[in-house]
Amino acid sequence: MGRSPLWTAIRDRLSEEIADGHYAPGDKLPTEAKLAERFGVNRHTVRRALADLAETGTIHARRGAGVFVRHRPTPYPIGRRVRFHQNLTAAGRVPEKRILHLETRAAGPDEAEALSLDDGAEVHVYEGLSLSDGAPIALFRSVFPAARFPQMLRALQATQSVTQAFKANGLDDYTRARTTITAKTASPTLATHLHLPGGAAILRTVGVNVDAAGRPVEYGRTWFAGDRVALTLGEDG
Amino acid sequence: MGRSPLWTAIRDRLSEEIADGHYAPGDKLPTEAKLAERFGVNRHTVRRALADLAETGTIHARRGAGVFVRHRPTPYPIGRRVRFHQNLTAAGRVPEKRILHLETRAAGPDEAEALSLDDGAEVHVYEGLSLSDGAPIALFRSVFPAARFPQMLRALQATQSVTQAFKANGLDDYTRARTTITAKTASPTLATHLHLPGGAAILRTVGVNVDAAGRPVEYGRTWFAGDRVALTLGEDG
Repeated sequence: MGRSPLWTAIRDRLSEEIADGHYAPGDKLPTEAKLAERFGVNRHTVRRALADLAETGTIHARRGAGVFVRHRPTPYPIGRRVRFHQNLTAAGRVPEKRILHLETRAAGPDEAEALSLDDGAEVHVYEGLSLSDGAPIALFRSVFPAARFPQMLRALQATQSVTQAFKANGLDDYTRARTTITAKTASPTLATHLHLPGGAAILRTVGVNVDAAGRPVEYGRTWFAGDRVALTLGEDG
Repeated sequence: MGRSPLWTAIRDRLSEEIADGHYAPGDKLPTEAKLAERFGVNRHTVRRALADLAETGTIHARRGAGVFVRHRPTPYPIGRRVRFHQNLTAAGRVPEKRILHLETRAAGPDEAEALSLDDGAEVHVYEGLSLSDGAPIALFRSVFPAARFPQMLRALQATQSVTQAFKANGLDDYTRARTTITAKTASPTLATHLHLPGGAAILRTVGVNVDAAGRPVEYGRTWFAGDRVALTLGEDG
């Protein structure tokens, strides 16, 4: 049996300390110089260990700022039934929603098209933040046909849950008809809401939920912090 | 009937010129000052028209560089059968793949796990670029169990097509078992390959394809240029 190279021992030690929570997601690691001193090795050896941890996604370097422990992304299934509370609870996270804005107004052209509404028809608008274990993971904006769900805003105000609000409005089940996923960089507004540095990567989904008859009931746009969620499909989808 | 505000006429005119191809995806629009001169209006009016076009995603501003016509993203279904050639052809685009690297080597830990291989088992590695109408849209790296598909690299070299290469190795069909989607910003290497500015948004997918018996046959990672594709699921998925 040959001896393992020194850098792998350092990598494994740091990896353990991260797994143990000694360094938590978002924490900055000590500098290369400090780590070299601590382990009694040269900086080249430390750098090799850090490079390996970066490759596996355990840590990430921000230019000029240092090396940080990566937030472990929350797995977020986007199958036939996309349910925020259920998704987060299944991942062992504590779900929370914060309402930013509720209003009723005329549908925009894309909203009217997605919901099969006539021009000028009204929609209820629900804008807010989704949090996982207290950290914001997404900004969302959902619109609902106002004529069909007259009490939607009151129910959302009371429960913050789309599923519960639909139930209160007589709709017991709904499914995802289609989703489109793109990536973009965070605008200043998004960065502020999601506590991200400007220019961070955003995972953007646009989805339509329908009732059992296939009629659209929700048109939703969500901007996820790109490093805090991993959208998943398949298996149980 | 009231008169429409002036800015909407300018917006509609610019929108037409973009639709007609007078300004193509990626083109820089004239400056606000030039447009104000051309339409005989003040810059505030031009700005209002541009803001509206930006909101609908027709154009986008790059700080300090100007306003550009947005590339229309290629819709890319990620349902049960993810097929590059078929996806692009269905979207009216010309598909092309460029091989960057082919090799056979021991599987990494994540690769072995995803493909249910023993430690140290060999995989064939296929790395390359996917292009849509001649523009790079993704960098990909797929690995295949080498023992099961001995002639895979030769077939990939000849056809560039995973579907064709599987057929040549006796596998007529395969389906997507699961996909994970995250967003990140482009590393310098990715930016160079995809002709993106550094820090541009990347849509990263990790997927496992299986045979009819559910055995993994491909573990693939793809880095899409975030503004050139829109992953879609649902309907025909």
